[in-house]
Parts: sequence; structure tokens; C-alpha cells
Amino acid sequence: MLAGVETDILGEGLKRVQADIDSLFDALLPVPEDTSARLIEAMRYAAIGGGKRVRPLLVVSTASMFGVSRDAALRAGAAIEAIHVYSLIHDDLPCMDDDDLRHGKPTLHKVYDEATAVLAGDALHALAFEILAEEETSTDPFVRSELIATLGKASGMHGMAGGQMMDMVADEEGVTYDLQAITRLQQLKTGALLAASVEMGAVLGRVAPQGRAHLRAYARDIGLAFQIADDLLDVEGDVEKAGKALRKDSEQGKQTFVTLMGVDKAREQARALVDQAIGHLSSHGPEADILRALARFIVERDR
Amino acid sequence: MLAGVETDILGEGLKRVQADIDSLFDALLPVPEDTSARLIEAMRYAAIGGGKRVRPLLVVSTASMFGVSRDAALRAGAAIEAIHVYSLIHDDLPCMDDDDLRHGKPTLHKVYDEATAVLAGDALHALAFEILAEEETSTDPFVRSELIATLGKASGMHGMAGGQMMDMVADEEGVTYDLQAITRLQQLKTGALLAASVEMGAVLGRVAPQGRAHLRAYARDIGLAFQIADDLLDVEGDVEKAGKALRKDSEQGKQTFVTLMGVDKAREQARALVDQAIGHLSSHGPEADILRALARFIVERDR
Repeated sequence: MLAGVETDILGEGLKRVQADIDSLFDALLPVPEDTSARLIEAMRYAAIGGGKRVRPLLVVSTASMFGVSRDAALRAGAAIEAIHVYSLIHDDLPCMDDDDLRHGKPTLHKVYDEATAVLAGDALHALAFEILAEEETSTDPFVRSELIATLGKASGMHGMAGGQMMDMVADEEGVTYDLQAITRLQQLKTGALLAASVEMGAVLGRVAPQGRAHLRAYARDIGLAFQIADDLLDVEGDVEKAGKALRKDSEQGKQTFVTLMGVDKAREQARALVDQAIGHLSSHGPEADILRALARFIVERDR
Repeated sequence: MLAGVETDILGEGLKRVQADIDSLFDALLPVPEDTSARLIEAMRYAAIGGGKRVRPLLVVSTASMFGVSRDAALRAGAAIEAIHVYSLIHDDLPCMDDDDLRHGKPTLHKVYDEATAVLAGDALHALAFEILAEEETSTDPFVRSELIATLGKASGMHGMAGGQMMDMVADEEGVTYDLQAITRLQQLKTGALLAASVEMGAVLGRVAPQGRAHLRAYARDIGLAFQIADDLLDVEGDVEKAGKALRKDSEQGKQTFVTLMGVDKAREQARALVDQAIGHLSSHGPEADILRALARFIVERDR
């Protein structure tokens, strides 16, 4: 369990980021008066409210260690979150995972229709890069360009989309992965975007690439711990709290960290990764406390 | 009909750009040895071969007027084309236009499956921004960032995606648009990306925003002419040559420039727009000849 003080730091941090990201999406997505209104309403339905906002909190917390303004970090966080939300919309489609529930409410294609869901996902995808290309995110065009390169790489064929395809091939063609392959798959599918969150915080803070090694190591470890925790949640979680369908992996007979390692070993591994992640922050003082708390939260969360 | 010399300039230009864009996508999309290979193979199927490459030719031709290296302009052209291709993949999905034929071959979801088509579209979308964020496109981060802002805006909710939603709402809710509304819809759906092609050529050429007004006017006019020509093709075209389904608009009782204006008036209007577009290039000499030829090609093409 999390210690009291850590829970407070983290609880406050998450609550504040959740409110800030909701306001930012609200401001970025005014509903127009023409017939494209449905598109923006659909984007708002998916983007505002409900998310844990772990990725924006990672950006904001990392950026704050290097004195970056909260507003700039929030914009970068909103860009990553827009990518995360678009990927959930497309993942939930009938032709993909066919899910009816997300963040405790009906999925977008259930409320609107599939075509609107495809298009709203696409528009959120474009929005992410629009946000990063604007001067409000950074007055330094080099920083903007580096943020965009980082996010594009993490979300595209060498990141999230590549991992999703590996996952899909396993489902459809009955390919079974060993622990090494599952680790690689998850590093792409989930880990790349979490790592990009930390990386973009460091880019905003103008930390030179060689000075980011320990942050990258932290991000890699929490990314893997995050996925193991997700696999544990799928087996042990409460659907009510999770706000999404569970037991899907086991019903599909899918290989996960839990099927490969067993529940106890998987939990042990997740905790070891968290300890290791926190170890990578040893050169930082209390300014990194929220990253430490976030690492613990990732394996203890119930949704 | 096009004059002989213009056909030559244009025919050569298109052929060369088609070959160059194909090689560039080939280089950008090496097939990996892991199970994400299917994703990259699907991206290649959709992106390599078949397209007219009007948008890349617009970028390359505009950029060459200002002395930009062909390699840089081709990369920007490939980025726009990646966006164009992703939008066609998603448009062709069963939940959208449900098309079986594109560029004379089966659509991506027919060859693979819907999930692969969604994901390949998403990955091409990300690829566009990855390409633009790299130094090979421009060593000046300000130029890179401006290219990304231009493309993000043209493809997102205030551009292509917004126009597609307006189109979808008309189909589903039986909203009928008048000529003004159809013009606005098409300016978003098709015009925005064509205009961005010219704009990005000018950005690469470091033409100041105020010096781009006549190029913007040219792009706006050819964008509209392009769509009127598409509506004419839908009515009068040859399916074999077009390489895609035709007569869809009239079968669906959809409002288009042709239903609103009639065939003769629509053709007259398209030609007037082309003359007007060419008029906007009067301050340029022979270096703009290819843009002039391209404007004429847009209304005379048979696919």
C-alpha cells in the first residue's frame, strides 16, 4: 500500500491534473455551429472526464523538476492524452476489441456510431500534433519539433501501433509469445507512450539527451510494471471500479504476464520493477517525490 | 484539352513525382522481422503505387519556385500523401463509405481486415508527422514546426475531418446543403489538404505569410475546381479508368456541385475557377508553368 504522505501528494497531483486537462480539452474543443458539431461533441465525449490522466501527470511532474511552466507541460500532457484517447476509441471499435464500456460509460461508437468513432479518433490524433506545433506549448521551435518527433515515434508503427499489431496477430493467428516477446510487445503497445510522457517532460526542460538516461530507465520500468498491473487487474479487478470489461484475456486464452508467470510471481515482478524505477531517481531530491509516488500507484491502483 | 507542351511538362512532372514518392515510401517502410510486419505490409499496400500524387506534385512544384531542394520537398509531399492515403483507407471502411475498389485494386480492408485497415491508417497518420519532425525535411526547426502546424490544421477537425463529418451528417440525417454549404464542406474535406500542399511548399521556401496570399488564392480555386471535377467524374466517368466506384452520389441522392448546378454549368464553373487560379500566378514566370498545367489537369483528368 502507499504511505499516507505519498497518497496525499499523488492524490492531489492527479486530481489537479485531471481538472486541468479537462479544462484544457474544454477550451481546445469549442463546439462549432455547423454540421461538423457532431465530430467535436464526440471528441469531447471521449476526451473530457473519466481518464486517470497518468500520462499528463508524468509530463507535468517531470517538467516541473526542471522548472518548466505548468501551462506548457499541461499542453504537452494534453497532446499525449489526445493520442491515448484516440487509441482507446479505435481499440474499442467492433472490428478491434469490440468493447461497450470505457471509464464507466458506454464507448463512443455505442453512443454515436462507428463512423463517428473512427473520425473522432482521427481528429484527436491530428489535434495532438496541432497542440504541440503551437507557440503556446513552447516558444522554441526546436523544442516543439522535438516534442513532435518523440510523440510521433511513440505512437506510430515503431511504438503503440506496432505493439497493437503484434497483439492482434497473436489473437487472430494464434501466435503464442514467450515472456521476452510479451515484454517487447508491451513495451511498444503501452510502454512507448508512457516513456514518451517522461521524455517530453525532459524535452520541455531542455535536459540534454545524455542527461535523460536515468529518466528513460525509470519510464521503461514503470511502463512494464503498468502493464503487469493491468494484466493482474484483468484477472483480479472489480469491473465496477475498473469501469471497463475485465477477464477478456483469460476468456480469449491470451498469453499475458499473469498466464506466463502466475499471479504471485507477476505481482512480485511488478513491485520489483517499481523499486528499480524509484532507484533510477536517486540523483533527485524531493522534487521527484511525485514520480516515486506515481510509480507505486501504478501497481497498486484498482482501475 | 491540355496543350501539347503543358501535357509534357505535367506528364513528366507527375511521372517523376510518382516514382520518387514510391521510392520514398519504400525506404520509409522497411518490413520488420517481428509480428508487426503485417502492419507495415498493409501500409505499403496502400501507400505505394496507384495514387496520382497531385498533392506531392503541388508541394514539389511550389517549393521549386523558391529554390528548395527536391529531396526536402518530396519528404513534405510524402507526409501530405501519407495523410491523404490514411484518410482514403478509413473512408473506404464498411462503417464509412464501404468501398471495395481503390486505385484499381481491392481496398485495404478487403485484402487484410478492418482492424488492420484502421491500424494501418493510424500508423500512416503518425508517419506523416514523424517525417516532418525529422531534420532531413528541414534543418530549420521553425520550418519543421510550421509544416506540422499547417498539416495538422488541414487534416484535423477544422479541415479534412471536419468536412468529412459534414458530409456524413448529410448522408445520415438527410440534411440538404445549398451551394454555399457544399462549397464550405468541400473546402474543408478536399480543399484544405490541397491548399496545405501549396502552403507547405511556400513554408519550405521561407516565403513570408503575407507573400503567400496569391498562392493561397491559387490553391483555394484549384481545390474547388478539383471537387467539381470529382463530382463530374462521378456522373460521367469510366469506372475502369477511375479505378474506384462511381455513380455513388447520384445513387444516394446526394447533393453535389453537379446536382445543384447541372453538368454544363458545373463544367463551366470548374474551368472558370482554373482560369482564375492561373490568374493568381501572374506575378510568376515560367517557373510556375507546372502549377498552371496542374490547374488545367485537375479539371480535365479522367480519374
